Amino acid sequence: MKRNLYLTTRPVEEARAVYLEALGDVARPHSETVRVIDALDRVTSEAIYAKYSSPLYNSAAMDGIAVISSKTAGASEASLLTLKAGEDYVIVDTGDPIKKPFDAVIMAEDTQETEGGMVIRAAAPAWQHVRPVGEDIVAGEMILTRCHRIRPIDIGVLLSGGVTEISVYAQPRVGIIPTGTEIIEPYEDPQEGDIIESNSRMFEAMVREQGGIPCRYDIVPDEYETIKKSVLKALDDNDIVIVNAGSSAGTEDYTVHILREIGEVFVHGVAMKPGKPVILAKAYGKPVIGIPGYPVSAYLAVENFVYPVIRRFTGLSESGERNIEAVLSRRLVSSLKHREYVRVRVGRVGDRYVCAPLARGAGAAMSMVRADGFCVIPQETEGYEAGETVAVTLFCSPEEIDRTVVCIGSHDMLLDVISDMMSGESEGVRLSSTHIGSLGGLIALKRGEAHITPTHLLDEETGIYNESYIRSLFPGEEMVLVKGVGRIQGIMVAPGNPLGIKSVEDLVRARYVNRQRGAGTRVLFDYKLKQAGISPEEIDGYDAEAATHMAVAAQIAGGEADCGMGVYSAAHAMGLDFIPVGEEEYDFAMRPETLEMPEMKSFLRILTSNEFKAELEKLGGYSTDKTGEIRRIFAE
Amino acid sequence: MKRNLYLTTRPVEEARAVYLEALGDVARPHSETVRVIDALDRVTSEAIYAKYSSPLYNSAAMDGIAVISSKTAGASEASLLTLKAGEDYVIVDTGDPIKKPFDAVIMAEDTQETEGGMVIRAAAPAWQHVRPVGEDIVAGEMILTRCHRIRPIDIGVLLSGGVTEISVYAQPRVGIIPTGTEIIEPYEDPQEGDIIESNSRMFEAMVREQGGIPCRYDIVPDEYETIKKSVLKALDDNDIVIVNAGSSAGTEDYTVHILREIGEVFVHGVAMKPGKPVILAKAYGKPVIGIPGYPVSAYLAVENFVYPVIRRFTGLSESGERNIEAVLSRRLVSSLKHREYVRVRVGRVGDRYVCAPLARGAGAAMSMVRADGFCVIPQETEGYEAGETVAVTLFCSPEEIDRTVVCIGSHDMLLDVISDMMSGESEGVRLSSTHIGSLGGLIALKRGEAHITPTHLLDEETGIYNESYIRSLFPGEEMVLVKGVGRIQGIMVAPGNPLGIKSVEDLVRARYVNRQRGAGTRVLFDYKLKQAGISPEEIDGYDAEAATHMAVAAQIAGGEADCGMGVYSAAHAMGLDFIPVGEEEYDFAMRPETLEMPEMKSFLRILTSNEFKAELEKLGGYSTDKTGEIRRIFAE
Repeated sequence: MKRNLYLTTRPVEEARAVYLEALGDVARPHSETVRVIDALDRVTSEAIYAKYSSPLYNSAAMDGIAVISSKTAGASEASLLTLKAGEDYVIVDTGDPIKKPFDAVIMAEDTQETEGGMVIRAAAPAWQHVRPVGEDIVAGEMILTRCHRIRPIDIGVLLSGGVTEISVYAQPRVGIIPTGTEIIEPYEDPQEGDIIESNSRMFEAMVREQGGIPCRYDIVPDEYETIKKSVLKALDDNDIVIVNAGSSAGTEDYTVHILREIGEVFVHGVAMKPGKPVILAKAYGKPVIGIPGYPVSAYLAVENFVYPVIRRFTGLSESGERNIEAVLSRRLVSSLKHREYVRVRVGRVGDRYVCAPLARGAGAAMSMVRADGFCVIPQETEGYEAGETVAVTLFCSPEEIDRTVVCIGSHDMLLDVISDMMSGESEGVRLSSTHIGSLGGLIALKRGEAHITPTHLLDEETGIYNESYIRSLFPGEEMVLVKGVGRIQGIMVAPGNPLGIKSVEDLVRARYVNRQRGAGTRVLFDYKLKQAGISPEEIDGYDAEAATHMAVAAQIAGGEADCGMGVYSAAHAMGLDFIPVGEEEYDFAMRPETLEMPEMKSFLRILTSNEFKAELEKLGGYSTDKTGEIRRIFAE
Repeated sequence: MKRNLYLTTRPVEEARAVYLEALGDVARPHSETVRVIDALDRVTSEAIYAKYSSPLYNSAAMDGIAVISSKTAGASEASLLTLKAGEDYVIVDTGDPIKKPFDAVIMAEDTQETEGGMVIRAAAPAWQHVRPVGEDIVAGEMILTRCHRIRPIDIGVLLSGGVTEISVYAQPRVGIIPTGTEIIEPYEDPQEGDIIESNSRMFEAMVREQGGIPCRYDIVPDEYETIKKSVLKALDDNDIVIVNAGSSAGTEDYTVHILREIGEVFVHGVAMKPGKPVILAKAYGKPVIGIPGYPVSAYLAVENFVYPVIRRFTGLSESGERNIEAVLSRRLVSSLKHREYVRVRVGRVGDRYVCAPLARGAGAAMSMVRADGFCVIPQETEGYEAGETVAVTLFCSPEEIDRTVVCIGSHDMLLDVISDMMSGESEGVRLSSTHIGSLGGLIALKRGEAHITPTHLLDEETGIYNESYIRSLFPGEEMVLVKGVGRIQGIMVAPGNPLGIKSVEDLVRARYVNRQRGAGTRVLFDYKLKQAGISPEEIDGYDAEAATHMAVAAQIAGGEADCGMGVYSAAHAMGLDFIPVGEEEYDFAMRPETLEMPEMKSFLRILTSNEFKAELEKLGGYSTDKTGEIRRIFAE
């Protein structure tokens, strides 16, 4: 055997890119079903949706008494009120259901038991200290996108959402072949000329740390045919094969010749020290990597070239907990009494990180899943002003944040679909979406806290959606409106429509649940009321607000309300009946430079794809005539 | 049952400190033996020493030919030399033994085969491209201190050093008791009033991530006696018990009452939001922690209060890979051709991080174990100057670096002993020691790269150790010399002293192995030679250098040399005979402010402890009359 004297060496990044490109679809993960309680560190292979809402019912948010809010009217420090046990109140602990006729909770600390009953010092407004059904998780809501590594908090939320089994990527099997006539097992007594074989055991541990399953083979002597046979066997049993060593250019370095015979060698030699003599190859459709023998070289070669291949199978990008500084998008007030941990979403908009606080309740487990990190408000601190720079401990890497499209505005289930498809399309790309209504979203966009704002705001005068609102909010700026979908809005009612509701006029005789101020659906509802000549006071529940279509649907499904306005897809998902009221335009507003972000290109590619349109058809209630059209909007 | 209305809330750090203090010796880990190949992420419970050296013998560092250096003299580009196969050279691959009469390797690239033999273009100096026995690991050397979390690279080095089983701390068993009449298992169909139990599954995953073994019990209804029974059972089976929830002040919150009955409650209520109603208690000598029910509160309470208790058992402090900037202590030259990964030790000296490059050979696996991180020299870069700031990727947390005493100077095995004892005494405190000889160490101390320098430099004129060297190197500064040990230096020879060596005079008829320039032992040897009227040229091997006492001993034990000077403990450890030559003073030089470092106080406490003296007696060859004396040295 001749020496292979002339390795050509490639720069590290180039070698890696060439190899991953050459592997193509080879390293594509397959999936399997596991129990949620066994799923720690596994990676989701598809989006996961909640089966049940959490809480499942209206429930007490505090220990105390459940009361009928109307019967507490007039109570004050000056005018104590005594409630009768059983009749006016019942004692509840946190989490207990709040059932009719009770509709509010007074904290234990604010009550005093007497012989006649319970003394209170303040009136309780309706729904005080009550967690409405679905406050944390709404049945049908997406809990996790695909390609998400399961953390302890995810396990908690999945189970709370009624999910007990999930589909995850199979762990890749990595065959490890130690070669060398001079190497011996660690348990034998070494003689001169012997080298204790230890690299393969280091590789086993490295593969485990990366989420693979190592499979180590017996030591193979430096003989061409024997090594070849072992490589073929390992290729049969595994998804990836590591051969160690024989990757260099010595007289007994057979690996590269064998790999050329049975497959294709893309790289032999990398400009990295230590670690130069690396072989990156493919055989029988599987990645085979030749690793040098010196331990430090071996370690670096595995880290630089085997890890990225394993990650192709696990669907994961690198991550770890890190600290960054971010500009706070909202004022954050906290008590001096305690240290507060506030969950935040983080995005890079322009050249700064922006963080938006999420739900702060202790019951809001989903906020932990949605959060990109924590911002800690120290004890003895009153909080921070909007625009202040705060320290954030990330749950993911800053690189992941950099690849996130920050979406703030109106809610629609299609955002979940796009988000999941983005996670699946390209490693590490994410859509982070926060639902505060169309108008709130446009204001966030103006303040530089969002990349895009989904909006469906009707101009009552012109009948045109969104454009006039953008013009008035962004004077002197050129903006872009990417047309989204036509969306059927309507009235959601319980299955079978027991109250026989046919139009907005019928709503005066039902319990309504509304959306928050600034939500496009609320603007539309106000417009429809005005058209029908009905005043808001005539609607029972006009002031009851829910933050998303799904939250409205959940309240109707749970019997808390009879009807509410929303989109067909939400009614469909919750098994409700739906009375169409009209079609509206749900679009995406952004600054022109946002169109140039690679992640935004992924968003637009998905928005106009047939796969996405097929998903919309499954959800129902959408039209896509204008989807993806780009309109430039400029107002002097 | 009355409500527990009046929780007193304590600040988070205070609550944690109070609790850990109250637990005292309760949470002390016990240890067990595991195979090295199963030891990933386990934590050593005692220092681990190498059984064999690595390499085991002098070996080829390159693929090429082994030659007799004297026979290559005169070869050059202008005067090619042809060597005869079998006689003048043999072909070797990396790792092959280099046996007499061969004593050097020429790289394959620099040779050309002809009919008559092998043509070379340059002479090979003795020991060129030969890895001497023990270059990476010396038998008897400490590989890991106690309290070290096993990483993949450690597994490789332990096996290379002949270690196949190690003693690690047992993983703590953590009992998890979900309580609540309203909670149900995830697999049941939820009804109104039901809450799906998910916290305990989140806790299981959190305990696993921290290296504990979770043991979840069945759901217990809110009944005093039933919960008590379950807690007692869990206390029987586990090291730590978590009760969830019932930790608050509701009517059915029994946990605090039960813990007061069967044990002691130290904290009830923490100033943390979410997460306030935490109970920190002890019962039957074991930690019991009451965790609130809301998932976010539960998560934060476990992270803040259960994790530190688990770490008491695992012996670990927090860690993760992080990036810092550090000042380079030595010039670092690299080729433009490749990206180079240089292992570095990092220390915080004053207000800056300082990093010192370690051995750069690909075979130096121990350098990966010793390293605190990597400094990457990009391709197309020639390297960095000393004093430049470079980016370092740490293997541990910056906090661990902050708690490290940086020790640069002369080598003695007692440093391993102190290092191990420091790791055992206090969580996260470390001694990082680099061996470059006494004089090199004092220069590093002067440049602000070290906290302390072990030194044993003899002033031939006064016969006083160390003080005059410090005076001349630190003019105008007040310095401190902490007296270390009296140490017997002598000549190490093979067992039985086959050459019958009795004194320095006899060394002219033996193969000697020397220490590097600036080493105190070399200064002493030069002094002894001068006294004996022998010139260095008369000593065969005067220019052969080894970096530590153990490396010298290993070469004698391996037969590469007949004798060398060193300390008794090294001879003893390698089973060599020892001819005493004299006692010297091995002390620690430092700046006065170093005495104030808490970690240095730990060092001094150990130095003067009886436990340490007992260890010295086991090693042999030390006296401790002045140990721990502090001398102020000031030179104008």
